[in-house]
Amino acid sequence: MAGNEFDLINHYFKTQPVSRKDVALGIGDDAAVISVPENSQLVVTTDSLVAGNHFLADADPVKVAHKALASNLSDLAAMGAIPAWCSLALTLPSPDEAWLKGFCEGFYKLAEYYNVQLVGGDTTKGPLSITITMQGFIPEGKAIRRDGASAGDWLYVSGNLGDSAAGLDVILKGNQPSNELEETLLNRHYYSTPRVLAGQALREVASAALDISDGLVADLKHILKASGVSAVINADTLPLSDELIAFAGSKEKAAHIALCSGEEYELCFTVPESHRGALDAALAHTNTPVTCIGQIRHGEGLQVLWEEQPVDWKLSGWDHFSE
Amino acid sequence: MAGNEFDLINHYFKTQPVSRKDVALGIGDDAAVISVPENSQLVVTTDSLVAGNHFLADADPVKVAHKALASNLSDLAAMGAIPAWCSLALTLPSPDEAWLKGFCEGFYKLAEYYNVQLVGGDTTKGPLSITITMQGFIPEGKAIRRDGASAGDWLYVSGNLGDSAAGLDVILKGNQPSNELEETLLNRHYYSTPRVLAGQALREVASAALDISDGLVADLKHILKASGVSAVINADTLPLSDELIAFAGSKEKAAHIALCSGEEYELCFTVPESHRGALDAALAHTNTPVTCIGQIRHGEGLQVLWEEQPVDWKLSGWDHFSE
Repeated sequence: MAGNEFDLINHYFKTQPVSRKDVALGIGDDAAVISVPENSQLVVTTDSLVAGNHFLADADPVKVAHKALASNLSDLAAMGAIPAWCSLALTLPSPDEAWLKGFCEGFYKLAEYYNVQLVGGDTTKGPLSITITMQGFIPEGKAIRRDGASAGDWLYVSGNLGDSAAGLDVILKGNQPSNELEETLLNRHYYSTPRVLAGQALREVASAALDISDGLVADLKHILKASGVSAVINADTLPLSDELIAFAGSKEKAAHIALCSGEEYELCFTVPESHRGALDAALAHTNTPVTCIGQIRHGEGLQVLWEEQPVDWKLSGWDHFSE
Repeated sequence: MAGNEFDLINHYFKTQPVSRKDVALGIGDDAAVISVPENSQLVVTTDSLVAGNHFLADADPVKVAHKALASNLSDLAAMGAIPAWCSLALTLPSPDEAWLKGFCEGFYKLAEYYNVQLVGGDTTKGPLSITITMQGFIPEGKAIRRDGASAGDWLYVSGNLGDSAAGLDVILKGNQPSNELEETLLNRHYYSTPRVLAGQALREVASAALDISDGLVADLKHILKASGVSAVINADTLPLSDELIAFAGSKEKAAHIALCSGEEYELCFTVPESHRGALDAALAHTNTPVTCIGQIRHGEGLQVLWEEQPVDWKLSGWDHFSE
């Protein structure tokens, strides 16, 4: 392959498995041209993954691509939106064919599953990083925001929590996973399942929602602040995988990990008492497990209980600029 | 300021001068929610600027912000679109207040001028880089593409060419500009004028268009390839500033620079003979100088003439992965 930027882009990104009818002009012009469905609003999100911060520079590019795309899909899921189009800004130290091949494999596999078309982007030389901007759409006025929670609403999460942090722990040890348990957790870190169908199903049921990218405790605070409420989490009810409990050594230690585990890409959402009966029916076709882990209250702050007693655990969310 | 990612984002990016009525939900949720005007198509572009490649790490952040936003505005201009919304992915080694203040100053000044609202983004820790995804809209089916040029169409550019490369030359010498001429050229490099109004005016006149980001010769080839045509450029008709001619030492040397100068963000476009009479009227309200520099022909390739004789100049476009 010639070391030419345009050849590089053409070779790996101009042919792709997804071709949507609403894309009038995709990759290859100054900009893409798209028809947004009638009576819908556009929903837009951006996420960056930087080598050395969000992933190790020598991480498997298939996994890195999945993680990058999944984090954007998860943001749209949290709004209840339907993902549709994305742009990819890829900064690479050099046009490494093996890396690009792996990245495209991971990227297109997930993009195809959710019918998301890559419509543009930019390839530049520099320290390895990936920025994806994803667009989707949603019926007018139906987006699930962060500011809709009210005292009395029930607090839910999808899936299990904590596996991502445990998998990261395995990765940061720097060796290959030493047993099946570690392998499972490592893959949970990279291969999260964006809750796209569940998010859409929650449009008529949830009063507020977000996706867990910085840890449940850190992210839930955004709902509490935006909605002007407080919350109680019953940590003993947190959904935990058997692998996490085995990894942590006890259910209590696993719950502690689950409260702060970032990059889970599970949904955290609130449901008014009056909609609680409709929740199971709404989610039935999505095959998404959800668990009630607490309740929204009046006032400010967040209380974490273990078997009805306040915990004295040190809880922190992921913060890129703090050490 | 606390070294907290969210504080950082809130402080510098949550309050901004532009507030569009079509933004239902801006910064602060998982994704932005936008109403695209009826009977319009969405137009999307992405550009990355990486420190050490597109700008020096110690460059004035006011100028860097202008350059980053202008390159995206220019892509939308080349489509004939109306810019409206953007996302900013900012990767910073540390939350440097002085840098952020300068960056916001440059960013918001230009965003306000074109009524572009920042609707989201991501702030991460890592080597300095900026990725902007900008969205705009255009009346259905009116986008100016790269594949519409036909033999006989006249070839035009907006503004002057070559100042950006000369300004970059001044910057790469590593010192402060030594005289007024160098200062002028340096500012031309950073402070390009995205031809947003001109692009919109060209919708009914131009058969093809793009913006010059990698150099006239390199970019024009994209139109030629997409349209299946060739072209002749009369290099002695290229629009050159007095400053560039003084810097280069002769009109011929200046024209050579102008052919390869990247990051100009001027428009290169083709106009059928039948529309040529309408060009001046279309552009009259935009205050945009344009110059006819050649013509589209049948066949393949690009011929560059100087006073009707073929030149033997070495011509190359900017390529991030070639040395």
